[in-house]
Amino acid sequence: MPVTLADIQAAHQRIKPHIHRTPLIKSDFINREVGAEIFFKCENFQKVGAFKARGACNAIFSLSDEAAKRGVVTHSSGNHGAALAWAAGLRGIKATVVVPENAPAPKKRAIEGYGATIQYCAPNTAAREAAVSALIGEHGYELIHPFDNDDVIAGQGTAAIELLEDLPNLDIIISPLGGGGLLSGTAIAAKGLKPDIKVFGGEPRGADDGSRSFQSGVRVTSQTPQTICDGLLTVLSERTFGNIRRDVDGIGVASEEGIIRAMRMTWEYGKFICEASCCPPLAAILEGSIDVKGKRVGIIITGGNVDLDRLPWVVK
Amino acid sequence: MPVTLADIQAAHQRIKPHIHRTPLIKSDFINREVGAEIFFKCENFQKVGAFKARGACNAIFSLSDEAAKRGVVTHSSGNHGAALAWAAGLRGIKATVVVPENAPAPKKRAIEGYGATIQYCAPNTAAREAAVSALIGEHGYELIHPFDNDDVIAGQGTAAIELLEDLPNLDIIISPLGGGGLLSGTAIAAKGLKPDIKVFGGEPRGADDGSRSFQSGVRVTSQTPQTICDGLLTVLSERTFGNIRRDVDGIGVASEEGIIRAMRMTWEYGKFICEASCCPPLAAILEGSIDVKGKRVGIIITGGNVDLDRLPWVVK
Repeated sequence: MPVTLADIQAAHQRIKPHIHRTPLIKSDFINREVGAEIFFKCENFQKVGAFKARGACNAIFSLSDEAAKRGVVTHSSGNHGAALAWAAGLRGIKATVVVPENAPAPKKRAIEGYGATIQYCAPNTAAREAAVSALIGEHGYELIHPFDNDDVIAGQGTAAIELLEDLPNLDIIISPLGGGGLLSGTAIAAKGLKPDIKVFGGEPRGADDGSRSFQSGVRVTSQTPQTICDGLLTVLSERTFGNIRRDVDGIGVASEEGIIRAMRMTWEYGKFICEASCCPPLAAILEGSIDVKGKRVGIIITGGNVDLDRLPWVVK
Repeated sequence: MPVTLADIQAAHQRIKPHIHRTPLIKSDFINREVGAEIFFKCENFQKVGAFKARGACNAIFSLSDEAAKRGVVTHSSGNHGAALAWAAGLRGIKATVVVPENAPAPKKRAIEGYGATIQYCAPNTAAREAAVSALIGEHGYELIHPFDNDDVIAGQGTAAIELLEDLPNLDIIISPLGGGGLLSGTAIAAKGLKPDIKVFGGEPRGADDGSRSFQSGVRVTSQTPQTICDGLLTVLSERTFGNIRRDVDGIGVASEEGIIRAMRMTWEYGKFICEASCCPPLAAILEGSIDVKGKRVGIIITGGNVDLDRLPWVVK
């Protein structure tokens, strides 16, 4: 049975003692640029620097004692891995994270810093899944998938609950779209609380499986992503695609130049650190792929774990 | 008569409709590094991206109608100029800002963006003051000095009021120290509300007139600053030195390397954009110049107007 608003509300109660209630930030400059009132829900200030803390925490604290005792495993380009490591540490259980060798250095340091074991793999889906399967076979670990998991989806949806508690009169919510866990949870929570709200995803044109799947009605099952958004490389799962087809109103796409421009604009005028992977929603607005004129818009800023030595606008 | 807590409370009521109540951010990583609980009062999210909005707004809305009609002038390396431009725009009056030619580009754009007139001068105190005097003589403008002005000082003190409303059990408040307007207002507000709290300033060793004046009891009246903290170049005035001698418990100093390290640590773990000029307090703690072990500490983050093409840790 798909995740419901009640599941997300229960997740919120479960994780509240452990997570930050993140602030909303707005910028007069950005509002003038887009002709709308935009509120950034700043999950860059969340535990582990990303919204992924919500889903991981809900999944870890939903485990039976028996499963918890065996430990958990996941694969992640970064933030979900750090989040699972952090949440496992809170419950005092063992976590192993399968990480692609080319993940950003701060994300690798974070996973280890939170006390999880890292196992490296080649940077492709097949290699990740093989490594995970081997660990499950050998140790009986519970897989906490980064997005294809209902407890994770329910946890991610809690950001939208806070957004609508703080701003009941929002017209639109937009989240970045990678595997679809956040967008699923966001849409289920938002439509459950406020049926007439519009929910959109934003993704890079260089990893636009979500948009193509949504438009054709047939899920794109593989792609060769070409984008700096290292958190948005994966394709939707059947589960997340089903949620998104049911509850989401559209998917905007953004160019790489637009994403870098939106990232720099957010840093310069929003005054907070966000990853490139946060920026397809604002970029899609700026490039006309999502129309928000005159509306009150919540954008979920997904994380702030950036390698400060590799900023995309700095020419080396 | 020096500024009092009552003046600062009145200022808070006066400016509240116009300013943001800025959030507090904390980082588990930074807390572990320093062995204390640090709350950053994030004035980088303030209007115009800096606490200077508070003082400028209070000064502008404290003007008589007659003075307001003639207009205002100031000299500023940046944030106070933008803040005065913004506040003058709110009241619909004319503002002219005398700016050193070498001020960071985003600060110049901001001043003009808020509708003030810029007049450039050579980057030294004498040239600034000459330009200001000429404008006052010619047009009868009211000078709103960046820190040597009681209305400005009262406005700057309002950040400390919010900090203690949100966190009544703080042990220590630390602000950066340049001309001393913020530190004056902070100390007057904090000691007025909570007499046993400790208040410190933090300044670059390369512009340490405040520390030397405080230790010797004799105000240093000129210096040749050597620091990347472009907001902390000026010396104390008699007025701010008097306030600081009376109400401040000590001045910490920090090296340039320490300031850059603290700035990068704040970006990487605090996840917000702050100027180098915000970072002497954290750097002074990290370098042992201010002892906060085991305490609850509020640090005022003064602004977030950074030239993203010129980050101090990027080697060109």
